[in-house]
Amino acid sequence: MTTQALTLDEIYQLAFDCLTKAGADHANADAVATTVMRAERDGSVSHGLFRIPGYVATLISGKVNGCADPKPEQVTPAFVRTHGQNGHAPLALSRSIEMLAKSALTCGVGVLSLTHSHHFAALWPETEALAERGLVGFACVSYTPMVAPAGGTQALFGTNPISFAWPRPGKTPLVFDMSTAAMAMGEVQIAARDGHSVPMGTGLDANGELTNDPREILKGVLLPFGAHKGSAISMMVELMAGPMVGEGFSFEAAEGDNGDGGPPQGGEFILAIAPQILGSDNWAEHSEKFFAKLEAMDGIRLPGQRRHKMRADTGPRNVNFQLLETLRGLC
Amino acid sequence: MTTQALTLDEIYQLAFDCLTKAGADHANADAVATTVMRAERDGSVSHGLFRIPGYVATLISGKVNGCADPKPEQVTPAFVRTHGQNGHAPLALSRSIEMLAKSALTCGVGVLSLTHSHHFAALWPETEALAERGLVGFACVSYTPMVAPAGGTQALFGTNPISFAWPRPGKTPLVFDMSTAAMAMGEVQIAARDGHSVPMGTGLDANGELTNDPREILKGVLLPFGAHKGSAISMMVELMAGPMVGEGFSFEAAEGDNGDGGPPQGGEFILAIAPQILGSDNWAEHSEKFFAKLEAMDGIRLPGQRRHKMRADTGPRNVNFQLLETLRGLC
Repeated sequence: MTTQALTLDEIYQLAFDCLTKAGADHANADAVATTVMRAERDGSVSHGLFRIPGYVATLISGKVNGCADPKPEQVTPAFVRTHGQNGHAPLALSRSIEMLAKSALTCGVGVLSLTHSHHFAALWPETEALAERGLVGFACVSYTPMVAPAGGTQALFGTNPISFAWPRPGKTPLVFDMSTAAMAMGEVQIAARDGHSVPMGTGLDANGELTNDPREILKGVLLPFGAHKGSAISMMVELMAGPMVGEGFSFEAAEGDNGDGGPPQGGEFILAIAPQILGSDNWAEHSEKFFAKLEAMDGIRLPGQRRHKMRADTGPRNVNFQLLETLRGLC
Repeated sequence: MTTQALTLDEIYQLAFDCLTKAGADHANADAVATTVMRAERDGSVSHGLFRIPGYVATLISGKVNGCADPKPEQVTPAFVRTHGQNGHAPLALSRSIEMLAKSALTCGVGVLSLTHSHHFAALWPETEALAERGLVGFACVSYTPMVAPAGGTQALFGTNPISFAWPRPGKTPLVFDMSTAAMAMGEVQIAARDGHSVPMGTGLDANGELTNDPREILKGVLLPFGAHKGSAISMMVELMAGPMVGEGFSFEAAEGDNGDGGPPQGGEFILAIAPQILGSDNWAEHSEKFFAKLEAMDGIRLPGQRRHKMRADTGPRNVNFQLLETLRGLC
């Protein structure tokens, strides 16, 4: 794979230029480009520049409003509601997080309901933003149906990721961010391309039978991770990121989408909790004892550490050359 | 298996008498006996009378205070803290739920931190109690270490159940309540007794190797459900039911326990959310569309339905005769 080294500033600027060329205003392009640059910085390339063609497609098709001006509303001391004005999620999120954090620091808990928004990024940016403010963060979104409920054979759930972040004052937070599908669709596609098998339980073929052949799963459906238990969690995400916050389900997002290849409209639920209010004064030192036990075990790595290690390197990143050519054609 | 039919009142009274004989006061014995009776009523026999010898053991050993008088405290409009006064959890919970529900109905979200409590029941009683008040409920507790983190070979996590309930006005709620272990320890013991194998991934033998022989797992350790993803959720439970609410981890609960066979001291985290505040006016009708899609699929059953069907039958329940003899010896 041929790559070209770009500084983080260059990555940001390339993303920004593509987005403004497609009609995004400064505030929206800045928010998305920042999210994309940070993903590249942290080695999460599948959420980096790779996503720009999708973001651009939604601006060009008119599905997404590149000039959205979301205004978070403090509905109760603990509840912030943000109508995304049909824009990409990053601007709505960056404008809402501070108000959400303040709610949690005041009440012990805060919740954010984000609606009418198009989420096309990882979830750790929002949960980490809370953890960096000393708060526990939890977030979930749903997406278009790609996953069959355990026991079923037809897609009803999105890949429905959940993210959790735990603050570690003076250190980078502990963070996980994972799809509730057994495997990301992109990984199945790569396995199919490379002729590899995937573990049984990853998905079903077009006849609804278990298979370890990724080419057959691409004609069929993904399964949730962890069978019935993971399926229950994916169902919870449908409800939390859907009607609980005033938004739709994955199947409705798909029905309402124009098929431009970018993210459909959907909701996001974010929970912020202040352990300094709910817990004891020594909550941080106390939790470090647990992390020390975990880290002392062979084979255990605290989630999020690889990304934070990458982050410490402020140097250039190698970007796929073919992708760069595509992006340069967009701006 | 020889059984004897007992009415629900008789089940309650038997539990109540065993608990008061062992030193519980009226309020505590009533709360635990109600929880036990409801478990028998709903067909959840492993949380029914079967638990009474464990409850009694903790009262006799003095580990648990049978006269605890927990007083929920409204710390912020959205946060209720209950010090369990070292009692069994049911009284603390029954006294706290109304205040928690009111918090959520006022603020859109409410959280309960229960500490210094001994939880030996299912979690659905508390999440269902919220759903019956029109709220979304989520709860988790940790326990003594029995589960190795994915990638590790030593127990650090409890079986760490999570429960979620979604309100369905005019219907019984949708509820799941599941261990984050691949299989409950009791099920592994039964498989060992009956000479059955268990699925690979259930646990490790004493050498830290995967095995499907439950007898070897009993000498080794359980694994989380769903490999690394389930492990991350179990870790989240350790943090949420531990330092987030001012309590300890599973490994600390075990260190501080007297080994009387009853539940160790621990914490519980409960989240209540008002979809009528966060969501749209039609949140309930809207979510029914999703449930209808789920139920229309072959092989899919909404979680909690079996229990609610049992509940509709107010007749007597068949109780294991040997267990009854044991319990009659205790009161």
